[in-house]
Amino acid sequence: MMGEFKVLSKIKNYKDLKNLTKEEITDLCQDIRDYIIEVTSINGGHIGPSLGTVELTVALLMAFDPEKDKIVWDVGHQTYAYKILTDRKESFKTLRQYKGISGFSKIKESKYDHFGTGHSSTSISAALGMRVGKDLKGDESYTIAVIGDGAMTAGQAFEGLNNAGWLDPSRFIVILNDNQMSISPNVGAIYTYFNKIITKQVFQKPRQKLKEAINKIFGDQGVKIFRKIEEYTKGLFAPGIIFEELGFTYVGPIDGHSLFDLEQTLENVKSMRGPILIHVITQKGKGYKFAEENPVVFHGVSPFDKISGIFNKTSTAPSYSKVFGDALVELAEKDEKIVAITPAMKEGSGLVEFAKRFPNRFFDVGIAEQHAATFAGGLALEGFKPVAAYYSTFLQRAYDQVIHDIALQELPVLFAIDRGGLVGDDGPTHHGVFDIAFLRLVPNIIIAAPKDEQELRDFLYTGLNSGKTFALRYPRGNGYGVKLEDFKEIKIGSWEELVSGRDVAILAVGKYVYRALEVKKNLKLKGFNPTVINARFIKPMDEELLKRVLKTHEFIITMEDGVLNGGFGSAVAEYILDNGFSNKLLRFGIPDRFIEHGKVEILEKDLGLDISSMTDKISEFIVKKQPALNIA
Amino acid sequence: MMGEFKVLSKIKNYKDLKNLTKEEITDLCQDIRDYIIEVTSINGGHIGPSLGTVELTVALLMAFDPEKDKIVWDVGHQTYAYKILTDRKESFKTLRQYKGISGFSKIKESKYDHFGTGHSSTSISAALGMRVGKDLKGDESYTIAVIGDGAMTAGQAFEGLNNAGWLDPSRFIVILNDNQMSISPNVGAIYTYFNKIITKQVFQKPRQKLKEAINKIFGDQGVKIFRKIEEYTKGLFAPGIIFEELGFTYVGPIDGHSLFDLEQTLENVKSMRGPILIHVITQKGKGYKFAEENPVVFHGVSPFDKISGIFNKTSTAPSYSKVFGDALVELAEKDEKIVAITPAMKEGSGLVEFAKRFPNRFFDVGIAEQHAATFAGGLALEGFKPVAAYYSTFLQRAYDQVIHDIALQELPVLFAIDRGGLVGDDGPTHHGVFDIAFLRLVPNIIIAAPKDEQELRDFLYTGLNSGKTFALRYPRGNGYGVKLEDFKEIKIGSWEELVSGRDVAILAVGKYVYRALEVKKNLKLKGFNPTVINARFIKPMDEELLKRVLKTHEFIITMEDGVLNGGFGSAVAEYILDNGFSNKLLRFGIPDRFIEHGKVEILEKDLGLDISSMTDKISEFIVKKQPALNIA
Repeated sequence: MMGEFKVLSKIKNYKDLKNLTKEEITDLCQDIRDYIIEVTSINGGHIGPSLGTVELTVALLMAFDPEKDKIVWDVGHQTYAYKILTDRKESFKTLRQYKGISGFSKIKESKYDHFGTGHSSTSISAALGMRVGKDLKGDESYTIAVIGDGAMTAGQAFEGLNNAGWLDPSRFIVILNDNQMSISPNVGAIYTYFNKIITKQVFQKPRQKLKEAINKIFGDQGVKIFRKIEEYTKGLFAPGIIFEELGFTYVGPIDGHSLFDLEQTLENVKSMRGPILIHVITQKGKGYKFAEENPVVFHGVSPFDKISGIFNKTSTAPSYSKVFGDALVELAEKDEKIVAITPAMKEGSGLVEFAKRFPNRFFDVGIAEQHAATFAGGLALEGFKPVAAYYSTFLQRAYDQVIHDIALQELPVLFAIDRGGLVGDDGPTHHGVFDIAFLRLVPNIIIAAPKDEQELRDFLYTGLNSGKTFALRYPRGNGYGVKLEDFKEIKIGSWEELVSGRDVAILAVGKYVYRALEVKKNLKLKGFNPTVINARFIKPMDEELLKRVLKTHEFIITMEDGVLNGGFGSAVAEYILDNGFSNKLLRFGIPDRFIEHGKVEILEKDLGLDISSMTDKISEFIVKKQPALNIA
Repeated sequence: MMGEFKVLSKIKNYKDLKNLTKEEITDLCQDIRDYIIEVTSINGGHIGPSLGTVELTVALLMAFDPEKDKIVWDVGHQTYAYKILTDRKESFKTLRQYKGISGFSKIKESKYDHFGTGHSSTSISAALGMRVGKDLKGDESYTIAVIGDGAMTAGQAFEGLNNAGWLDPSRFIVILNDNQMSISPNVGAIYTYFNKIITKQVFQKPRQKLKEAINKIFGDQGVKIFRKIEEYTKGLFAPGIIFEELGFTYVGPIDGHSLFDLEQTLENVKSMRGPILIHVITQKGKGYKFAEENPVVFHGVSPFDKISGIFNKTSTAPSYSKVFGDALVELAEKDEKIVAITPAMKEGSGLVEFAKRFPNRFFDVGIAEQHAATFAGGLALEGFKPVAAYYSTFLQRAYDQVIHDIALQELPVLFAIDRGGLVGDDGPTHHGVFDIAFLRLVPNIIIAAPKDEQELRDFLYTGLNSGKTFALRYPRGNGYGVKLEDFKEIKIGSWEELVSGRDVAILAVGKYVYRALEVKKNLKLKGFNPTVINARFIKPMDEELLKRVLKTHEFIITMEDGVLNGGFGSAVAEYILDNGFSNKLLRFGIPDRFIEHGKVEILEKDLGLDISSMTDKISEFIVKKQPALNIA
């Protein structure tokens, strides 16, 4: 494949940049673009962000040396060019594949990845820690954080800026990669502000004129006081005053695709004192027509045809996100108290239609997970039924708010938790495997996981009518294509006995319910006759049914797509021992380690969570634990 | 007691304010101050913040009607005057006492508490949710958030401001209560910025002069373009430009103790369009000499003598915080790689001496829990040994960062987690009862809890030498006064068998280890002979010892000052069942509900966690579960 690339095929890594002519470097950028398009069209991935930073990457690698200087890429999904140029040119073909290279920055993957990322807005904090460490050691290399405009709406980015302005380190550079959108088009006052900055450039000339006028009128006596005023009003007519006020020197805005200007700017700021913020304007999807035209769709993609820009067909069953979004629209039509909140995940959470239909009742608060939860709490106190839609892993950002602002006050906020369980290619920062365990320990929360799309609908309906803090957790990807029916209420805390058997009972959660039925079939062939239960409420559990099951089945199996430590199976273990039962328990779930990226099916097979592995393990468990049991 | 108060004794609640003369209102403020000093001198409490907001409270209650308008007090520890004036005049005497009124805002306590608080920086988010809800309903009342300058350094406050500036609601007022310090004196660029604002007032006159000059020189033709410039540069010479740029109208700074000016300002802004930020300057501890002189000490206090300002003597044993701080200084003297990070808790975390001795290696990052963790990660990657000191409940704010930035990358950050377990008077928002459970489910983290002060020292030493992510969790308050010795390393994952017995084994965590020994004495009197184990590592557990104990003891007891759901006892339950043991298990810990405020001893008694209750429950458990057991 490399042979197609005129310049890229000739170079080993970024160190060869200095031997290339300007024309060759320009051609190299085109090669990198083509290569990114090629690989993402096959593997999927964050094509839009990575096409937007090709020139920025090359400029950074010309101006700085990543063997000494540290570059922290926020989120890390815009680093494909960086990966290609830092010794991962060949392995880039394995992007996001099992055992292949990660779609984000990852310190264990390369010495050039200086901080592992995945969730947004951590780069300034991490880079500042490094900068301060270098200062303590007397290390005069540079530390650079590259952060998007969307990521700037998150509180942690502000915390980092505020601390950096206070500590006032030199050789510390924040690059604001402003592509005018995060995943969804941006929202928030800071976004309006960035726009104003870009517009403001036209006022540079009047500024000079005014300065001359001041000197003219007030003469020598006036000069001193106006110097003082100038100081306090520095940047008045210049853009970036927010950053200036926080102690940064603002430079920009600069065209992020004008490579040699960028490089020159990076060289220029090297000798400046104190923290620097360089405002770079880039275009998401730059250089690939379809991505430029549809930046939201081409932010992160599944495989597509690179000539036509058309996505490969996958399942015909609708995604859980879509079923959720459609159901919410249906319910909101009849109930004007329903409002929806998303921290910058309108598309991913299936809320596009809701936003269109009910613009006044839809709130995209930007990448601001903490705020989103508390904001929902405020709405609940005014009598509304807020649905706060999060991805499972992003809810970790709002943990304290879920505990104190919502659960402690028993506010009726429904958390719609998408991407619960293993998510696949995005890997450890995106697997939603902790949620069941970290929510289960919070008092006053109801936690439900649907077995299929219709049950998701029913839970949404049930949760919105419950008047309780309600966590509704469902997986990434497509459902089973079950027929969708009218909403019905599900009794809170009730489980569903799907098959009645004897000796062995499988208690399965969420997407593992259907799998449990398959396992049951296999076990039947081996002479077992298990009961299968849809443990649809993780909290509260159906204690009545559980007690009956424990009394009538010696062997209990739990299945969940979440961590074993403290998860649903752990709740069952607690119940068994707290209540003096003596059942044998076998728990399936995610073990106590971070799970890498790769197709979900591969990961599950690896973890022994596929149908055949579970069947084998269950039969072995029964035989071993109960030698006296009379099988077949 | 009320009789002493000239005006306060005459009024029922804030509704009577309108019948008072200006002089009476001024006297009322003095009465309220005296009452606050009186009650906090007996009960302890947040005297400093609450003395600082007396006039602000009265002005708010004159200008607004809390039966319609919503007032959200950030943190809620500055609301004593508000509580007194909103129907809690008498019950204020029970401040922070068991079943008495809370030291924070609490919606279940009064219809006038519009949002429950405890942790900082949530008020703008909550109030904005309410405001938006009111707009949807066509409710034209006002929504007000009162937030301190310290709380403004937290990311969530910025997220709230950003979202408010974007949504642009009217009748939405943020009051920045600027007392130039949060708990510790403030840090961060935003603080410098507030200071600059206050200084800037002197430039109001030159501004007018400049405006005239511009008109003079550029004449009619110049007017239009300079109007435009004025618009873009609005607030250039005026203070508060950060807020203006985020879409707020900035008003201030205003003397927060000039009651009638305050009231007038509040009346004036009522008719203004869009979100308003009023910058109010107050003095922490205002009106009480000792609190004015020592604002850090008098932020939150234990009982004291109100005449002398001297604190009542309590235990002579040192607090865990102090032991931690002293040990860290000792270790840092010999190891220059040790650095300390605190999110605005220098005093509370025992880091005053460290900050004095090693100013370059000490980082108070402001109220910025998320940033603090990731910043520590950056330092770790530069080869340092960062100690990030948190209160247990505040660590909930950094949960995602602990998971992704530290644990996933296996960075050697030591989290010194103070205030683990029940904390007493501060109540549900401050009880550190979730940490064991929410950390246990995160891979790669070592979790240790010392039985006493010396073990705290040894764990600190062990953790800093481990090269691992290490969570060291200890309780609020005083230790046992044990003799402090040289540091020694504790084998990671090792438990300590304190007493060898038979049949029954007590596995106790942290502060419950000594209690377990007391329980053992009692049980001995009843004819039992329990083994007692210091389960000092919650993760990893001492599986070898645990296995041996499970084989040799039928009855297993766990004791922990954390939640039962998913906690240490849950880990033992998992282990028993995962490994096919058939022991009986009894778990002591915090049940699945939020625990109110009150003295720890009272709460523990209530929860059956005192020595006598535990003794009874254990003997009952053994007798009931094992009728065949031969006792005595």
